[in-house]
Amino acid sequence: MTFLEKVMHTLEEKEDRMIEIRRYLHAHPELSFEEEETAAYIADFYKDVPIDSIETNFGGNRGIVVDIKGGKEGKTLALRADFDALPIKEETDLPYASKNEGVMHACGHDAHTAYMLVLAETLAEMKDQLKGNIRIIHQPAEEMPPGGAIDMVKAGVLDGVDAVLGIHVMSSMESGKVFYRSGETQTGRAKFVLKVQGKGGHGASPHTANDAIVAASAFVMNVQTIISRRIDPFDTAVVTIGSFDGKGQFNIIKDAVTIEGDVRAMSNDARDLVEKQVRQMSKGLEEMYGVKAELDYANDYPVLINDEEVTGNVRDALIEANIPEVEEVVEVEAQSPSEDFAYYLQEKPGSFFYVGAQPKDKDWYPHHHPKFDIDENSLLVSAKSMAAVVAKYLG
Amino acid sequence: MTFLEKVMHTLEEKEDRMIEIRRYLHAHPELSFEEEETAAYIADFYKDVPIDSIETNFGGNRGIVVDIKGGKEGKTLALRADFDALPIKEETDLPYASKNEGVMHACGHDAHTAYMLVLAETLAEMKDQLKGNIRIIHQPAEEMPPGGAIDMVKAGVLDGVDAVLGIHVMSSMESGKVFYRSGETQTGRAKFVLKVQGKGGHGASPHTANDAIVAASAFVMNVQTIISRRIDPFDTAVVTIGSFDGKGQFNIIKDAVTIEGDVRAMSNDARDLVEKQVRQMSKGLEEMYGVKAELDYANDYPVLINDEEVTGNVRDALIEANIPEVEEVVEVEAQSPSEDFAYYLQEKPGSFFYVGAQPKDKDWYPHHHPKFDIDENSLLVSAKSMAAVVAKYLG
Amino acid sequence: MTFLEKVMHTLEEKEDRMIEIRRYLHAHPELSFEEEETAAYIADFYKDVPIDSIETNFGGNRGIVVDIKGGKEGKTLALRADFDALPIKEETDLPYASKNEGVMHACGHDAHTAYMLVLAETLAEMKDQLKGNIRIIHQPAEEMPPGGAIDMVKAGVLDGVDAVLGIHVMSSMESGKVFYRSGETQTGRAKFVLKVQGKGGHGASPHTANDAIVAASAFVMNVQTIISRRIDPFDTAVVTIGSFDGKGQFNIIKDAVTIEGDVRAMSNDARDLVEKQVRQMSKGLEEMYGVKAELDYANDYPVLINDEEVTGNVRDALIEANIPEVEEVVEVEAQSPSEDFAYYLQEKPGSFFYVGAQPKDKDWYPHHHPKFDIDENSLLVSAKSMAAVVAKYLG
Amino acid sequence: MTFLEKVMHTLEEKEDRMIEIRRYLHAHPELSFEEEETAAYIADFYKDVPIDSIETNFGGNRGIVVDIKGGKEGKTLALRADFDALPIKEETDLPYASKNEGVMHACGHDAHTAYMLVLAETLAEMKDQLKGNIRIIHQPAEEMPPGGAIDMVKAGVLDGVDAVLGIHVMSSMESGKVFYRSGETQTGRAKFVLKVQGKGGHGASPHTANDAIVAASAFVMNVQTIISRRIDPFDTAVVTIGSFDGKGQFNIIKDAVTIEGDVRAMSNDARDLVEKQVRQMSKGLEEMYGVKAELDYANDYPVLINDEEVTGNVRDALIEANIPEVEEVVEVEAQSPSEDFAYYLQEKPGSFFYVGAQPKDKDWYPHHHPKFDIDENSLLVSAKSMAAVVAKYLG
Repeated sequence: MTFLEKVMHTLEEKEDRMIEIRRYLHAHPELSFEEEETAAYIADFYKDVPIDSIETNFGGNRGIVVDIKGGKEGKTLALRADFDALPIKEETDLPYASKNEGVMHACGHDAHTAYMLVLAETLAEMKDQLKGNIRIIHQPAEEMPPGGAIDMVKAGVLDGVDAVLGIHVMSSMESGKVFYRSGETQTGRAKFVLKVQGKGGHGASPHTANDAIVAASAFVMNVQTIISRRIDPFDTAVVTIGSFDGKGQFNIIKDAVTIEGDVRAMSNDARDLVEKQVRQMSKGLEEMYGVKAELDYANDYPVLINDEEVTGNVRDALIEANIPEVEEVVEVEAQSPSEDFAYYLQEKPGSFFYVGAQPKDKDWYPHHHPKFDIDENSLLVSAKSMAAVVAKYLG
Repeated sequence: MTFLEKVMHTLEEKEDRMIEIRRYLHAHPELSFEEEETAAYIADFYKDVPIDSIETNFGGNRGIVVDIKGGKEGKTLALRADFDALPIKEETDLPYASKNEGVMHACGHDAHTAYMLVLAETLAEMKDQLKGNIRIIHQPAEEMPPGGAIDMVKAGVLDGVDAVLGIHVMSSMESGKVFYRSGETQTGRAKFVLKVQGKGGHGASPHTANDAIVAASAFVMNVQTIISRRIDPFDTAVVTIGSFDGKGQFNIIKDAVTIEGDVRAMSNDARDLVEKQVRQMSKGLEEMYGVKAELDYANDYPVLINDEEVTGNVRDALIEANIPEVEEVVEVEAQSPSEDFAYYLQEKPGSFFYVGAQPKDKDWYPHHHPKFDIDENSLLVSAKSMAAVVAKYLG
Repeated sequence: MTFLEKVMHTLEEKEDRMIEIRRYLHAHPELSFEEEETAAYIADFYKDVPIDSIETNFGGNRGIVVDIKGGKEGKTLALRADFDALPIKEETDLPYASKNEGVMHACGHDAHTAYMLVLAETLAEMKDQLKGNIRIIHQPAEEMPPGGAIDMVKAGVLDGVDAVLGIHVMSSMESGKVFYRSGETQTGRAKFVLKVQGKGGHGASPHTANDAIVAASAFVMNVQTIISRRIDPFDTAVVTIGSFDGKGQFNIIKDAVTIEGDVRAMSNDARDLVEKQVRQMSKGLEEMYGVKAELDYANDYPVLINDEEVTGNVRDALIEANIPEVEEVVEVEAQSPSEDFAYYLQEKPGSFFYVGAQPKDKDWYPHHHPKFDIDENSLLVSAKSMAAVVAKYLG
Repeated sequence: MTFLEKVMHTLEEKEDRMIEIRRYLHAHPELSFEEEETAAYIADFYKDVPIDSIETNFGGNRGIVVDIKGGKEGKTLALRADFDALPIKEETDLPYASKNEGVMHACGHDAHTAYMLVLAETLAEMKDQLKGNIRIIHQPAEEMPPGGAIDMVKAGVLDGVDAVLGIHVMSSMESGKVFYRSGETQTGRAKFVLKVQGKGGHGASPHTANDAIVAASAFVMNVQTIISRRIDPFDTAVVTIGSFDGKGQFNIIKDAVTIEGDVRAMSNDARDLVEKQVRQMSKGLEEMYGVKAELDYANDYPVLINDEEVTGNVRDALIEANIPEVEEVVEVEAQSPSEDFAYYLQEKPGSFFYVGAQPKDKDWYPHHHPKFDIDENSLLVSAKSMAAVVAKYLG
C-alpha cells in the first residue's frame, strides 16, 4: 500500500469522526473575531496528536498554526481551513442545529475544520513517511472584512511555505464532484461610503441651498460610465450603489445624502481602475456641484488568483487518485463571491478548490441562507482530495 | 362723521379687545381640521352680535359663515379669516404662549381671527348705514392641504358674493405698512410621491435584478430639464425632490425607492406644464428602465391671482383712507409660499393683501418658526385697512 | 409756443426727410464693424448743421460723436442711435430694399439713425433756447459682440454726461404706442465654447479610449441643474447648448467634442452665477471623466438696467407731451434679447425705451427676419418722443 | 503512406503555387459585393480540376460552390474561404502590392482563397480515397454587412452538410502556431441610428422649443446603464455611441440630433438584451422628453459560436497530425472582431480557427492597416491544418 493508499484508508475509517466534529461545531457556531470556544476546541483536539508544534492566537486574533514535519526532507505545504460562522438565525430542523441563537454555520466552515482536523491527525500519525512538511492553518474571521487571513499573513504564517491550498465545500455544486480553476477564480472586492454634503433649505428656494439629492443622483448616473466605458469588456467588474440614504421632507431641500457602494472585480487591474475612477468622480462631484464629498473607500479581499502550476497539480492529483467517492473532476467557471484566501495567494503560489456538497434528495439552499445545509459526504471527499493533492505535491 | 370715520373710531376703542382675543387664541391653538374649541369660541362670540345669520360646520369641517345684511341695497363682500394653528412647539416666553404643547399659532391666524371678530361686530352694530352686505368667512385648516377653503367653496360659501377679501399679517414685512399686489401673488403648489419599483438582488449580479436606485437617480436628473428647458424663463417654477428614500445594504441591489417632490409655480400654465412633464417623465422612466413607477401627483393650492380691479380698489382705498397707523401703502413682490385663499379667487374676483407685523425693538422670526411673533399694532391696522376697503367697495 | 412745441412742429415738417434718409440707409446696409459708407454719410449730414463739434472714428471704430451746446447752462444728455446692419439676405419687395446683397437693415437701425439725424439738426438749429447740452452718439456694431458701445464708453463718450437715452423701434410692438420699463429690461448674455478632449479608439474597446461623447453628454445633463437648482426661481436665466459637434463613425470612439452654449440672464447676479457654475462644471468634468475641458467663456452684453428716476422722467415726459401720434404710453415686460446700450447704463443713469413699429394692414415679421419691416410712422414718433424726454429732462 | 500523408506531401509540392495565387489576388483586390474578376479567377481555376460540380453566383452575389464527392460513402464537410478586399490604400512596398488604388487585401482573404484553391484541387485529385464529400464555399463580401454568408446560407449552401470549417490567418498571432477555441469565439454585432427629433427655437426661449441636444444627451447617459446594470458581469457587451451629430448655432435650440451606435456582444443573450434595452430606452426617451425618436437598429453578424465537439476534433486533429511547420496548437482567448462565418454556425456545427501569420524579422501591423502583411508560411500551414482536420473528421 502506498502512503496515499494508507492515508485514504485511514480517512475512510475516521469518516464518522469528521461528521461528529462537524456536527458539534455546527451546533456551537461563533461570529467572526469572536471564535473563543471554537479556537479552544481546535487547540484541544491536537493535545494528543503527534504534531511538532502548535501556536495559538497567531496574528493577534484566534488563528492556530500547526506544524507537522515529515520524516524525509521536502517542500512545505500549507493547508488552510477557516472556522468562523455568520450572524444568521438558523432555520433548519437538524438535530445538531445551532444552539447559539442568531449565529449559524451557514457557509460550511464547520465542515472545513472537521475534515482538516482529521486529515491533520492522520498525516501527523504517518509523518515518518511524509517527504516534506505540512503546516495547518486554522483561520478565524473569513466572513468579515478585513478578515482573519491578512493578519496571519503579516505575522508570517507563510514563512518557509512553498505553496498553500484550501478547499470550500459548495452547496451550489453537485455532490460527488470536485472543481478547480486556474487564474482569476473569485472576485476582489471593495466597499465605499460617500457622504455628499450640500446645504439644506426651503423647497421653494433652491438658490439659497445646495441640493444634495441632485448631486448624489448625478454621482450615481456618472458612476455608471466606469463600468460601461472604462473596464475592458472582456474583464469583469461591478459597481453597485446599494444604499442612497436621502430620506427627508418633500418640501425641504436635503442637506446631505449618504451613498454606499459595493465593488467587485475579476482582476486587480479592474479593481484598481474602479477605485481610481470612483475617487476621481467623487472629487469631480465636489467641483461640479460645490458640495463636499467625503469618500471612504476600502478595498478588502483581493482577486483570488490560483497559480497555474499548483492548480495543474491539483487537477492531475485528483484525476490520478481515482477517488471512489469522486465521479468527476471539473474545471469550473469563475465565482462571483470574494474570499480572503486571496491574501495567501498574493504571497505564495497555491490553489483554492471546491468540493461539491449539494444535498441529495432534498432542496438545497445557497450559502448564507438560513436553511443552508451540505451533503456530509463532502467531508470525506474533502479530506481525501486534499490528501491526494498533498501526496502528489510532496511526491 | 362719515360711516368709515365712525367705524375707524370704534375700532380704535376696541383695540384692547382685539389684543385680548388674539392672546386668548394664541394660548389655545388647535391643529388644522381639529379646531373644535376655536370654532366654539368664534360661534360663541357672535351670540350677542346683531348679525343676520350664522352657520357652523360649514362645508363639512369647522367653518363658520356669518351674514351681515346692510340697511341699503348693494353688493355682497366676503371677508375671510383663517383660524387653525401649526404642529410646532412654541419657544417664545410670551405670558400668553401656547398651553397646548406642540401646537402653536406660528403663522398669525390668531391675529386674523381677532381683528375679524371685532370688525364684524363693529360692522354689524352699524349695519343700518351699510350699503350692501358682508359675509364673514371663518375658515379652518388653511395650513394643511387640501385646506379648509376648498370645501367651503364647494358648499357654496361664495354664492351671491361679488368679491372676496383677505389679509395676512406678515412678520417679514415692516410694521406700519400695508402691501398689495395684482395678478399672480402667491405660488401654486403640488406634491408628488413616486415609488420606483425595480427588483432586488445581489450586488455582484446586477443582471438578475433591476436597480431601483439607478432608475430613481435617472429620474432626478431628467426631471431637472423640466425647469431648465420647459418653463418660460420669465415665468417661475420649482421642482424640489426633497426625499429620496433608498437606504439599504451596500451590497444588495435596492428593489424599490420612494421619491417625494414639491412643486411651486407662479402661473397656472407653469403648474400644469410641470404636472404634465412629471407624469410623462414617470411613464418614460418605466419604459426606459423596465421599472414600475407609481406616481401620486396632487395639486393642492392653486396660484393665488389677485383681481386687477379689486386690487386697484384695495390700493386706492388704503391710500385715500389715510390711516394714521399706516405710514405707507406698498406694491409688493410675488410671494413664494402658497395659500388656499387662492380657491376663493378661482370663483370670484378679490384680493389678498398683507399687513406688516414685524416686531419693533426685538429680533423677528419668519412664519412657522418656534419663536415667531408679531407686532400687535398690526391688529388695529388690519381691522382699519379692511374697513377702509369695505367702505370704498360698497361705496 | 414753447420750445418743445416748436421742436415738435419742425419735426413734423421734416418727417418726409426722415423717411427719405431711412430709405437711403435701408438700401445701403453695411455689416457691423464695416460701416464705412454709413459713417461717411452721417458725418456728411452734419456738414451744414450748426453743431459745436463732431468727432469721427470715436473709440477706434466708426463711432461719431456730435456735441450741441445749449444757449443756457444745464445738464448734458447723451442720445444714442446705432447704425449697423445684419448678414441677412433681404426678402422684402420694397422699392428701397437692400442693394448690398446678403446684408440687410433687419433690425431698424436705419430708422434709429434717420430720426436721430433730423432730431439733432432740429435741436442744433434751436440750441440757443436749449438749457443744457446734447451729445449725439452714432454707434456702430451693435449687432456683433463685443459691440460698438464698449469701445466708445472706454474712449470717454460719456465723460461729462449726466444721463443717456436710446430708442429701439419694435416690429413686435403696436405702432402708435411707446413703451418703457424701469430696472432690468433686457437680458445680459454670454457665449461659451467647451472643447471636451478625450481619446479616440475602437468602438469595441472603450477601455483603451476615453469617450468624449459620453463626457460631453454628462456635461449637458449636469449643466441643466444650474438653471433648475442654482438660480432664484423669481429671477430669469437660460443656458442653451445650441451645438454639440460630435459627428463621427458609429464604431469609432470619438476623441473630441465641441459644445457651444448661449447664456441669458435678467440680473447681473444670475449672469455671474451661471458663469461661475459653468466654469466649475467644466473643471469638475475634467476630474470626473479624465478629459481635458477647454472652456472659452465670454460675457458680452450686460443686463440692460434702466435707471428708475430717468425712466420715471421718460414716462412722465411722454404722458405730458400728449403727442398726437402716440395713443398710449405703456409699461412693458422685460425683453429677452440683449443690447449693448447696457454698457452706457453701467456708467451713467439712463433709459432705453421702445417705439411701436408694427406695420399696419400687412403681416409683420420679427427682428432679424428676411421680411422684417416697420411702420414708418415710428420715425416721427421716435423723434417726437425723444424730443419730449429731452425737453423735460433739461427743463 | 496514408491518405493524409499523401495530401500533405502534395501540398508541400504545391506551396509555391499557393504563394503565386495569393500574390496575384493581392495585386488585384476588389471590394465587397464587387468581386467580379476575383470570382471569375476562382471559377477559371477549377476548369481542369476533377470536381463534381461548380455553381457560380450562388445566393445572388458572387459566391462559388464546388462539390467534391469522395469515392467512399461518408459525411459532407463544408470548407469556407472568403475573397473580398477592403477600401484601404495599401502602404506596403511589396512587389505584388495592390494595383487597384484604394482597395487592399488588408485582412488576408487572398491567403484564404489561395490555400483553399490548392487544397481543393489536391482533394479533388485524390477524391477516390476520400470517405465522404467536400463542399468548398468561396464566399464574397465578408467585410461589409450584411455580408456574403447570409445569402449563401439562405440559398441552401449548407443543405446536406454535416459540419462547416473555416480558417483565418492572423497577423496578430505568432507564425508557426495554430489556435482554436470552443464556444463563444468572436463577438456579435449590431449598429443603430437614432434620430431624436425635437423642435428648434431661439436660445433664449426654451419653452417654445424642445431641445434635441438635451434629449439626446439624456439618451447617451441612460444608455450607459445597459452595460453597467443589465449585462451579466461575466458576460461581455459594449455599446459605443460613436457619433452625436448635433452641430448647430450656439444660440439656436437644436431641432434634431442623429446618434449612431455600435454594439458588440459575446453571447446571443447579451446581444438580444442590448437590442431590447436600446429599443426600450428609445421609446422611453420619446415619453420622457416628448421628442420623436426614430430608431433604426440592425443586428448584423451574430456571435460566432464554435461547436464543442467539432472544435475538439479540430484540436485533436491538429495535435495528432504533428505538422512539422506547426510548433504548437494553442487554445485562444475570445476575439473582439465580428465575422460572418457565424451565420454558418447558426445552421450547422462547425469551427472557425486561426493560423498564426505574424511576419518574422519585420514589424507587424494589425488587420485593416495599410501596412498589413502576413508570413506566407501561413499558406502551407493553413492548407495542411485544414487537410488534417478533414482527414480526421471524415475518418
